[in-house]
Amino acid sequence: MSRIITLLTDFGTADGYVGEVKGTLLTLAPGALLVDVAHDLPAGDVAAGCYVLGRVWRAFPEGTVHLAVVDPGVGSARRALAVAAAGQYFVAPDNGLLSDVLDAAPARVVSLAVPAGASRTFHGRDVFAPVAARLAGGAPLQDLGAPLSDPVRLAPARLTVEGSDLVGEVIHVDRFGTLITNIPNDRVERAATVKVAGRGFPLGATFADVPPAEPVAFIGSGGTVEIAVRDGRADVVLGVSRGTEVRATGRRS
Amino acid sequence: MSRIITLLTDFGTADGYVGEVKGTLLTLAPGALLVDVAHDLPAGDVAAGCYVLGRVWRAFPEGTVHLAVVDPGVGSARRALAVAAAGQYFVAPDNGLLSDVLDAAPARVVSLAVPAGASRTFHGRDVFAPVAARLAGGAPLQDLGAPLSDPVRLAPARLTVEGSDLVGEVIHVDRFGTLITNIPNDRVERAATVKVAGRGFPLGATFADVPPAEPVAFIGSGGTVEIAVRDGRADVVLGVSRGTEVRATGRRS
Amino acid sequence: MSRIITLLTDFGTADGYVGEVKGTLLTLAPGALLVDVAHDLPAGDVAAGCYVLGRVWRAFPEGTVHLAVVDPGVGSARRALAVAAAGQYFVAPDNGLLSDVLDAAPARVVSLAVPAGASRTFHGRDVFAPVAARLAGGAPLQDLGAPLSDPVRLAPARLTVEGSDLVGEVIHVDRFGTLITNIPNDRVERAATVKVAGRGFPLGATFADVPPAEPVAFIGSGGTVEIAVRDGRADVVLGVSRGTEVRATGRRS
Repeated sequence: MSRIITLLTDFGTADGYVGEVKGTLLTLAPGALLVDVAHDLPAGDVAAGCYVLGRVWRAFPEGTVHLAVVDPGVGSARRALAVAAAGQYFVAPDNGLLSDVLDAAPARVVSLAVPAGASRTFHGRDVFAPVAARLAGGAPLQDLGAPLSDPVRLAPARLTVEGSDLVGEVIHVDRFGTLITNIPNDRVERAATVKVAGRGFPLGATFADVPPAEPVAFIGSGGTVEIAVRDGRADVVLGVSRGTEVRATGRRS
Repeated sequence: MSRIITLLTDFGTADGYVGEVKGTLLTLAPGALLVDVAHDLPAGDVAAGCYVLGRVWRAFPEGTVHLAVVDPGVGSARRALAVAAAGQYFVAPDNGLLSDVLDAAPARVVSLAVPAGASRTFHGRDVFAPVAARLAGGAPLQDLGAPLSDPVRLAPARLTVEGSDLVGEVIHVDRFGTLITNIPNDRVERAATVKVAGRGFPLGATFADVPPAEPVAFIGSGGTVEIAVRDGRADVVLGVSRGTEVRATGRRS
Repeated sequence: MSRIITLLTDFGTADGYVGEVKGTLLTLAPGALLVDVAHDLPAGDVAAGCYVLGRVWRAFPEGTVHLAVVDPGVGSARRALAVAAAGQYFVAPDNGLLSDVLDAAPARVVSLAVPAGASRTFHGRDVFAPVAARLAGGAPLQDLGAPLSDPVRLAPARLTVEGSDLVGEVIHVDRFGTLITNIPNDRVERAATVKVAGRGFPLGATFADVPPAEPVAFIGSGGTVEIAVRDGRADVVLGVSRGTEVRATGRRS
């Protein structure tokens, strides 16, 4: 049996850390198909990793193994996890990186032992990659560690109802400066107004519906409302970053 | 039948967009071989994408499918294309990204339908990837959309003859700060002088033929004359960017 | 026979150079498994490439072909190499990039001919990729060039004994700002003090053993002592870069 192993890290692409992980995977699981998801996550930014992984895994076929390492607490007492959920597998530090996955589907979770001889600062290579390789080779999850019932989860982003408004927040800023909120597409009226940083925008359709340099709010491709600036960066134009409140006036009742 | 699918985008490597496209491809075309070309094209820079793709496809074997997405007009009325040319396939927005391919060889072009349920802002995942997967699986081009005879092309860079001079321009600045022109290698004499930004350089052979920090013009690896600074950046040293005029005195007649 | 070909370059991920190399490899060695190691090495930084490759190759299985191109002297008289060492293969310019490999194991080295028609500035595509493809296809090393006995090596980093001290230097700064030294883990006592830039730190275990923003020295994952700042950048906090002296007081005798 041979499976896809995806790689999502904050290791960057100027060092050899990604290469060491890949070599380890290909040594232990010679037939695995390695797929780079992203390696330039902001260093140590677990929330960004959680958001990105939370979208990406849904696009992959059953049986895929996702190796995700954003691990500022490497070498501390934080646990290491392997998870089976929604027909896929996840290997990651127990720091909230898998919060979205754990929220999305019933999950079986095991706690991984740190092998003798593992370095204390590179568990991506020494702890997570060997387990991902075993999963790719068909090892059952229960063989990989002891069951664990309380994996760490990030505090969920705020999402509240205030009269006819839905009040959420910016949960991710992407490469284009687009603001991604946690307000579900299917909970706002098509005629809603989206307010952020003291400004309000009608819920348009896409960048092309406004003039260049103008902000637009729209139904996002990841299931939640987004705010962008045509041919520009919404984070810069609006002075907004992750955590900023966003209000949709016109919730679907 | 299983084919190579290359990926060329401006999606960056800090978000999950590339991952979502790859997951979609591997779900719909499980045997395809995915090849990352580049994901750090400047955001929305169609001309850069056109230049890069225009070089890269020539290196790939027959039957390769190139998925290229630099798409600032996503969700607007701009069309979506699949193209067969030179024994290879191309899937991209109809915004000029394929200009070089269309100029290089006779092409069959079809206009793609946007599937019901596609997001309006992520056609890379929802429109282009499914079509690339079908091409990788051997689907005939004509099954993918209606024939189209007027794909968008970027305005060609200027290239004119003035007496014994060829006058072109910088069409790309690469990672090393090297200036790539549109003056064909085979249209200049080996003893030509290349002039840019008020300075002139003999057409040397390579970086190693001048002292460190000095500019040199040379026969480029992509078929056109280039200007570099040894152990430095020509764009910075010469204050030059894309579009700057370049003159070669000593054209081949 | 089909083999892994890894790619390690300073070509960046905004241009098509990596794509042209991959297309050439897949044209000449259709069954090869291409593995990106890193493409964002600092431009022209042979020492960084040497350090990264020196770690990465050890993680790969026997028979792997490593294509490494950081080549500021491309087109000069510098030679081009193919090397067999430790059961693996290496293709690279003869500029010191392979120093670590050559130090690690007995090596057979051949000097590659530059094919007629090769560009003078893109040997990655025109010289190294075709040779890597042949090695991946099982061609014997001796068929690829003439034996060579004096490959270029970088000057080794300083490592000296002064009484009970080991004096080395920072040989690499990674993406996280971590300082990697050339002081072997197994030559220092666990109770050693590590001094750099006028400050001293006990040899802790990992980031988690100190408060945030504090430096810590520790047994590194690459075989040598490292210095990091918890949730910060050691290079910035300590004002240190590659080449800075590091002293370990408490060497293992």
